[in-house]
Amino acid sequence: MTDIAVLGCGVESSGVAEVLERHAQGIEARCGAAVRVRHILDVQEFPDSPHRDRKTDRMADILSTPSIGIVVETIGGATVALELTRQALRSGRHVVTANSELVAAHGPELLELAAENHVQYRFEASTGAGIPVFHPLEHCPAANSISRVTGILNGASNYILKQMHRHGTDFAVALADAQQQGYAAADPAADIEGLDAARKIAILSSMAYETFLDYRDVHTEGIAGLCAVDMAWAEKLGGFIRLVAESKRTGNGILSRVSPVIVRRDSPLACVDDMFQAILVEGDLLGEALFCARVPEKRRTASALVADVIDLVGNPDAHVHPRWQRTAGRNAADPLEDEVELFVRARTGGDNEGARRMASRLFGQATFFQMEESETKDEIAFLTGRQVERELRRKIGRFAGGLRLSDVEPGAAMQADVVRVLRFGV
Amino acid sequence: MTDIAVLGCGVESSGVAEVLERHAQGIEARCGAAVRVRHILDVQEFPDSPHRDRKTDRMADILSTPSIGIVVETIGGATVALELTRQALRSGRHVVTANSELVAAHGPELLELAAENHVQYRFEASTGAGIPVFHPLEHCPAANSISRVTGILNGASNYILKQMHRHGTDFAVALADAQQQGYAAADPAADIEGLDAARKIAILSSMAYETFLDYRDVHTEGIAGLCAVDMAWAEKLGGFIRLVAESKRTGNGILSRVSPVIVRRDSPLACVDDMFQAILVEGDLLGEALFCARVPEKRRTASALVADVIDLVGNPDAHVHPRWQRTAGRNAADPLEDEVELFVRARTGGDNEGARRMASRLFGQATFFQMEESETKDEIAFLTGRQVERELRRKIGRFAGGLRLSDVEPGAAMQADVVRVLRFGV
Repeated sequence: MTDIAVLGCGVESSGVAEVLERHAQGIEARCGAAVRVRHILDVQEFPDSPHRDRKTDRMADILSTPSIGIVVETIGGATVALELTRQALRSGRHVVTANSELVAAHGPELLELAAENHVQYRFEASTGAGIPVFHPLEHCPAANSISRVTGILNGASNYILKQMHRHGTDFAVALADAQQQGYAAADPAADIEGLDAARKIAILSSMAYETFLDYRDVHTEGIAGLCAVDMAWAEKLGGFIRLVAESKRTGNGILSRVSPVIVRRDSPLACVDDMFQAILVEGDLLGEALFCARVPEKRRTASALVADVIDLVGNPDAHVHPRWQRTAGRNAADPLEDEVELFVRARTGGDNEGARRMASRLFGQATFFQMEESETKDEIAFLTGRQVERELRRKIGRFAGGLRLSDVEPGAAMQADVVRVLRFGV
Repeated sequence: MTDIAVLGCGVESSGVAEVLERHAQGIEARCGAAVRVRHILDVQEFPDSPHRDRKTDRMADILSTPSIGIVVETIGGATVALELTRQALRSGRHVVTANSELVAAHGPELLELAAENHVQYRFEASTGAGIPVFHPLEHCPAANSISRVTGILNGASNYILKQMHRHGTDFAVALADAQQQGYAAADPAADIEGLDAARKIAILSSMAYETFLDYRDVHTEGIAGLCAVDMAWAEKLGGFIRLVAESKRTGNGILSRVSPVIVRRDSPLACVDDMFQAILVEGDLLGEALFCARVPEKRRTASALVADVIDLVGNPDAHVHPRWQRTAGRNAADPLEDEVELFVRARTGGDNEGARRMASRLFGQATFFQMEESETKDEIAFLTGRQVERELRRKIGRFAGGLRLSDVEPGAAMQADVVRVLRFGV
């Protein structure tokens, strides 16, 4: 018999208890021991829960129960969860979590604290819950050099963008739908502003490159401004828009960003058109390996947490402790130094021809696209061609900022109102 | 320092030595010990190899070297490799292999022998070399019930079918190309007749369902008869043909088969259009998880073997021994009892209208398709609708066997020459 304690009493917490009960027989056969939830910590009462007999509101009850070897933290956030995780690790308990906010902010310290106390801090469930990407990332750096990790990591924004693309739904309606379906949180800021995806790509990068990447160094843009016309343009260009998180090793450090991107249908990541999450890992011998999951993250979290628990019970000494050294200086490269291709959509006030001529001169290798729909008749849209992003942004600034066409064509003048700039192609 | 021995001196063997050397530093850091190839066993001489100083032709040299804790078997086949694997396991060495033929035929006995000798027999590299699917399969049965595994597992046939589809290449030419590129073996029978895929799906099934599935119980069809017209039809129907291996749990046992299938472009497996291998795992909490790899299997094998070696060195006691019980009776279900949809292409001798009428009466819900190309003008092609395969095959037999149309339509008679029957939709 192995006892565990669960911190928090929300959906994840009851999910863990339920999965452990439903698969009790298989787990016992596999681990050589039954796994039982001994205590559930929460300050609230939950009189209607089937697990109410195990409820406690004192962490001391858990810490003073010697049979408890593993603590599952499902509280979320980085305040109470941080303090209780520290207490659990210091007391010699393994800790398992899906809390990407806590891992992204305090991963190095908590991993060190775990190592000092000869226990493990496990968080496979924190990024793409249940997409089994950690095991390869943990084992690859020896046999492969991972060069790049690209992912569609936030299930809520994926759902919202899919609804907008397929059904022409407005952003606000799609968001409300996602909240109602339980894909987005009541406070959706972390989902739609890209913070959740930034934390997850930071965690994946830290695993892959074995150096801690601070999520605050991930250049992050959200999806809130996007509208149906953008979706139509993405379709026209042979793709669809998703919130893409990306990181790669460069000579100047780890280049990472989260932003809405037009994903081409011939991209490996295009499989998420019908899936909820996708992670593409590139390495020298591994080549490209793609992991996708169709079930919404929230429904997989409990399963992923239990998988980590089982690993700990079955192989308590097995885990290789990840080493997330904080570097002395900043280890993040400037994403604007990367070569990219941008999609630009601009209102012209009527002189489409003039605007196109101007864009041609400025960008050199712009490719123009047209739509029949009347709503875009005062607009032009083009792909810039691949160039260093800083240079492209400078040119877009000139294009938008009332560039006098006389700069490039004597006597002419016009102003373009840049409506949207999106990265094209992943 | 951990010493290993490699059996065999082919591409995989030198690949293992090369990967170990190239990543020596990372491996030492991760495992806490350097990993060195101490002996390479082969009966041939290889005077030009950089590893010739470690060559031996006597297994006794390996067995009598106490520092060797791990043996990597790269011989292939199930004769010499079987005997040497047994010797290595009995002598208390872990064995790592990519040999799907050996694992599929003798897995249960070798796993038992390993357990008896308190060592591990590891073969992650044997199926989808380096697609990290074993770890989730090993850990899933506790937290998830795996219900189905579907894969495009044979890289050679995938390459051949892609060439045929994209470039209109003849089968024989595409095969020769695949052999020249090193994707297909000099004797390609196991690749193109589906045997390799059958062994791999049997191994994956045994992992997923924790009961040994004999690969000889996998209903297996190959790809040798396919031609450019089939590819054109697949395109017309919104897909492409791949050799698909599939297994699922049913009330009557494990239903498994390997056959050419028209994969629809909206299927998760469609990502292999541009990849080399794909494995889709379905489970109750996991939902659908998809793993794909773009690099050809052969180039990933060495990396996958080394990953298993590293796991053993880093965590020698960590592995959960898979249990592959042979069942008393046959545990395979009859694939003909499954509901499927079939694509049928038949020559009519000119009376397309009559043949269509006949097919309509026979199959009830047939959907007909037409092509403009003249070469198919004496043909009809249709999808049968979903029915139990045994029933569909019986109807196709009647259709092909000179069914007198008078059976269904008084006074009429005709014979259809069924050119192709393919499963539709994965």
